[in-house]
Amino acid sequence: MDTVAGSSLIYLFRWLVLSALVGGLAGSASAFFLVTLDMVTLYRESHRWIIAFLPLGGFLVGAIYHYWGQDVVKGNNQLIEEWQNPRKIIPFRMAPFVLLTTLLTHLFGGSAGREGTAVQMGGAIADQFTRLFHLSDSDRKTLLVTGMSAGFASVFGTPLAGTLFALEVFILGRLRYEALIPSLLAAVLADQTCRLWGVGHTHYDIPFVPALTVLILLKVLLISIGFGLVSTLFAELTHFWSKQAKRWITYSPLRPVVGGAIIAVAVYFSGTTRYIGLGVPTIVASFHEPSAWYDWILKTLSTTFTLGVGFKGGEVTPLFFVGATLGNALAPLADLPLSLLAGMGFVAVFAGASNTPLASTVMGIELFGSEASVYLALACFIAYLFSGNSGIYGSQIVGSPKQ
Amino acid sequence: MDTVAGSSLIYLFRWLVLSALVGGLAGSASAFFLVTLDMVTLYRESHRWIIAFLPLGGFLVGAIYHYWGQDVVKGNNQLIEEWQNPRKIIPFRMAPFVLLTTLLTHLFGGSAGREGTAVQMGGAIADQFTRLFHLSDSDRKTLLVTGMSAGFASVFGTPLAGTLFALEVFILGRLRYEALIPSLLAAVLADQTCRLWGVGHTHYDIPFVPALTVLILLKVLLISIGFGLVSTLFAELTHFWSKQAKRWITYSPLRPVVGGAIIAVAVYFSGTTRYIGLGVPTIVASFHEPSAWYDWILKTLSTTFTLGVGFKGGEVTPLFFVGATLGNALAPLADLPLSLLAGMGFVAVFAGASNTPLASTVMGIELFGSEASVYLALACFIAYLFSGNSGIYGSQIVGSPKQ
Repeated sequence: MDTVAGSSLIYLFRWLVLSALVGGLAGSASAFFLVTLDMVTLYRESHRWIIAFLPLGGFLVGAIYHYWGQDVVKGNNQLIEEWQNPRKIIPFRMAPFVLLTTLLTHLFGGSAGREGTAVQMGGAIADQFTRLFHLSDSDRKTLLVTGMSAGFASVFGTPLAGTLFALEVFILGRLRYEALIPSLLAAVLADQTCRLWGVGHTHYDIPFVPALTVLILLKVLLISIGFGLVSTLFAELTHFWSKQAKRWITYSPLRPVVGGAIIAVAVYFSGTTRYIGLGVPTIVASFHEPSAWYDWILKTLSTTFTLGVGFKGGEVTPLFFVGATLGNALAPLADLPLSLLAGMGFVAVFAGASNTPLASTVMGIELFGSEASVYLALACFIAYLFSGNSGIYGSQIVGSPKQ
Repeated sequence: MDTVAGSSLIYLFRWLVLSALVGGLAGSASAFFLVTLDMVTLYRESHRWIIAFLPLGGFLVGAIYHYWGQDVVKGNNQLIEEWQNPRKIIPFRMAPFVLLTTLLTHLFGGSAGREGTAVQMGGAIADQFTRLFHLSDSDRKTLLVTGMSAGFASVFGTPLAGTLFALEVFILGRLRYEALIPSLLAAVLADQTCRLWGVGHTHYDIPFVPALTVLILLKVLLISIGFGLVSTLFAELTHFWSKQAKRWITYSPLRPVVGGAIIAVAVYFSGTTRYIGLGVPTIVASFHEPSAWYDWILKTLSTTFTLGVGFKGGEVTPLFFVGATLGNALAPLADLPLSLLAGMGFVAVFAGASNTPLASTVMGIELFGSEASVYLALACFIAYLFSGNSGIYGSQIVGSPKQ
């Protein structure tokens, strides 16, 4: 027992130090990102003419990656591939590039998220310590986990979801415990760091959770199948737009230019900025008032198109938007509370698209409280089952089949 | 997409039916068990002279397994081994035998728990459907998961913890998703069934959770190391008493007779029944008033001795007792809230002894609410790290090393 306790102590101390470094830096990066993202969003909403320059923003994003960022352009998938098959240290450039291009995307009115940005900043920051401390391949894998966990945890203010996301995302259908404690420490420290910078997170509320009955269970299963199918639609559409853009436009910086022009025209004629940017106000509203039935369709189109043509950001907040407004729209049909279905959709469409059902369930519990936990788990697990083996992270390998 | 959705539908429907059967039966069995357990506990507490007959109760328990239960005596470990290496259907006898012997253990004043009983009833009930529906080996593994999940979920009223427990318990350091959805469905349905029978569960409360600081984090880590070491002590002591009993007494029904006599004498001279039975009143009290500093030591001794000499029941509720009273005793030293440390110890000593850190964390969230989730996760994960590779389930195989 003594030697086990001794080596556990050394292990704990070592990862406490590394997680504090990674968590402190990644949490600070997330805080800076959240503050600047708020600024560009506010600027865009009060100077809407800037959306006319979305093609220019697209050119900047495209050119940055085309000329200087070929080795960091694969983003989240690159982190996943390095974990699966370590080859070379993630260039630090990944962090400032994704930060800058995400801000450009949001400033000029693309529709995107933020988890990709935070996770890539966290992963790129973490991996720099591999060289500094001469870490082995297996320690480096753990380090990559801490970076992604720290980024995810701090950008959403959900430390346990960050912990599990970084353990779940690499292999579909498996959760390995090798990095369990480092992942938790980095997530907690990153989240605390981000909060120390005074950066808060959006609050959502599910005020009433009905008792489960057989009828409600059957409704929940049916609706959750819908969430899963929409996850697949989202992932497939992103791949589709990306393939089309590559097929028709060979010079890559031109793709977001053309794509940006199309989005700008669509925004101009629709007269609304509801479907660009993060969409947080619409997500919040979906918890207490009816959304339009087509909200989830338009957000799916705008985000998959934005990302498919080469803008940067992430998929997760738009997935929350799609799920929450879809759940909201289904609530009257199912005769179930609006906020409960919005919350279920919020996490379930994300669970299906990212293939991380446990992280998604726990995220729901962290954001909405534990009263709805069974509903959240049912929604996430069933959406995971019905989203098939494709997802937003193409580099995931299948560890266990879903059925 | 269509064929994936189609086969997912068939899978879901199939496991909905099987999980409803397993959940309904295992949940009813848990309800019956909880009610009768309450009755025998009440009877013992109002007729304490019955403890003088603990040696007789010991003989009955020992004789039942010696003469008619050799093929079901390994209990939880037997379920784990059948899952790892399927050989023969679990005899249905396992269910009534463990029910009856657990009630005898509690009626005459042994110190034991209830999760072993519920999990074995669930597992044995579930496995009967293997023959009925001619299931394949891989479906049978899933079925065993549903039985254990259903038993655990319904006996504690914690469906998500039951879901994860049955996925986590077989292989140390891995969580496989093959049975994710069946496990959840069985857990939810068993829990609902148990509640439909009007059987409630104990409530615990952590009214105040302090904001995390670096100092508090370091205290929490130190205390959680203590929880982990106590888990190991509990598991090692159970093995120790069992080895001693087997070494000195070859006729197995005699072991609980001698052991029972020793416990009865100890209870008589100590003049308290605080350390026998489940100990739920002491656990509840540890959330709002100081426990004695030695409570956890005496409960560890009484339970490991009771189970080591051959009485039946489970380890989990006594582990809650040990952890909650230990946390409670450490609270003034650490200058942290009593109820928070009681709650952390409650789940963490269980996490360390059972090697199921995620199920334990989620159990804490289900019982105490999500506000303390980071504290609960830190306690459970660190206790898991420091409990080494031994645990109360000797048949677990190591999938991933802890460090």
